[in-house]
Amino acid sequence: MTQGMLYVISAPSGAGKTSLVNALCDGAPGLAVSVSHTTRPRRPGEVPGRDYYFVEKTDFEQMIADEAFLEYARVFDNYYGTAKATVEEMLAGGLDAILEIDWQGARQVRELMPECVSIFILPPSREALEQRLRSRRQDSEAVIARRMQAAISEMSHYAEYDYLVVNDDFNLALSQLRSIVQAQRLTVRRQVPQLEHLIAGLLA
Amino acid sequence: MTQGMLYVISAPSGAGKTSLVNALCDGAPGLAVSVSHTTRPRRPGEVPGRDYYFVEKTDFEQMIADEAFLEYARVFDNYYGTAKATVEEMLAGGLDAILEIDWQGARQVRELMPECVSIFILPPSREALEQRLRSRRQDSEAVIARRMQAAISEMSHYAEYDYLVVNDDFNLALSQLRSIVQAQRLTVRRQVPQLEHLIAGLLA
Repeated sequence: MTQGMLYVISAPSGAGKTSLVNALCDGAPGLAVSVSHTTRPRRPGEVPGRDYYFVEKTDFEQMIADEAFLEYARVFDNYYGTAKATVEEMLAGGLDAILEIDWQGARQVRELMPECVSIFILPPSREALEQRLRSRRQDSEAVIARRMQAAISEMSHYAEYDYLVVNDDFNLALSQLRSIVQAQRLTVRRQVPQLEHLIAGLLA
Repeated sequence: MTQGMLYVISAPSGAGKTSLVNALCDGAPGLAVSVSHTTRPRRPGEVPGRDYYFVEKTDFEQMIADEAFLEYARVFDNYYGTAKATVEEMLAGGLDAILEIDWQGARQVRELMPECVSIFILPPSREALEQRLRSRRQDSEAVIARRMQAAISEMSHYAEYDYLVVNDDFNLALSQLRSIVQAQRLTVRRQVPQLEHLIAGLLA
């Protein structure tokens, strides 16, 4: 079984990352988003193990102490994190795993798994980004401005990533993400275990 | 202007490399095969500067002495080589350059341009390879066997390459080559010069 590949995908909020990642996974067998752990309360309609692993705060902190996370963050009163076990199980089963995390999480993951492939998604313009942040909810100008500052702060880390994709035309951006995944599957490291039999026959 | 990318593509004779590379270049603007220098006589129909740069042996040897080649080889009485100037001019003009060379040439190129991307193309089976070597010309069994040994020797270097593509279904192999080129164009290194204006606007 070929070990799966770990993808880290980051973007400012409003860049359309989640829709792109969902479409990418729908069209690419063997590729799935890793399910995170969180301490925030479950919302109506959320399914444990599909949307999140919902755990108590003390359990989460015990996992931190046990170094059980590939990356985690505290956002206000809640923790969010990617368990090493979740990712290792996916990769060992030959699945490519996607982490949708921010630049800080990406840094933690690169530290522990430097062979991961990281992709940053950019919006097509400042105006489009502001429009998307605005159309999401009926917030005050101050809230929009704060979200824009957060987006700019996230975007300032684009150069730490392996790939840059601009989400202007959704289908073009999707095909670009597919190319990245496809190309990774063609690397010698990924191909050799799959082609072992062919190669042995060719070189015999 | 974004600097182009250098691709090195190798394969045993009979793997269908040239047809794949030609189709790849036809469908991908900004990608072209680098024209080699050679000392062998021009054949009918060959166009200087398109098929080869035809030069005298003394001139070729002077270029070797001047370290003007990215890679070169002597095959029987003739020299073949890729001039640094040819490739540098393509890359500086924003063109991606493809070198169709063997594993020994690939090693020389990696030495001088470690940022090159190298791809090895494999035939789908020993039988298919033998059939392709056989159908090419009416040669004796001894000649076929020698060609097969040369192919095996070339293939034994597959692990030195970045990517492995199996040419079983021509169109599938072609789309895989396209993914590799497409993904390379999405790397941060390639994207940043092109997206300079967008990024400046987003981070302003």
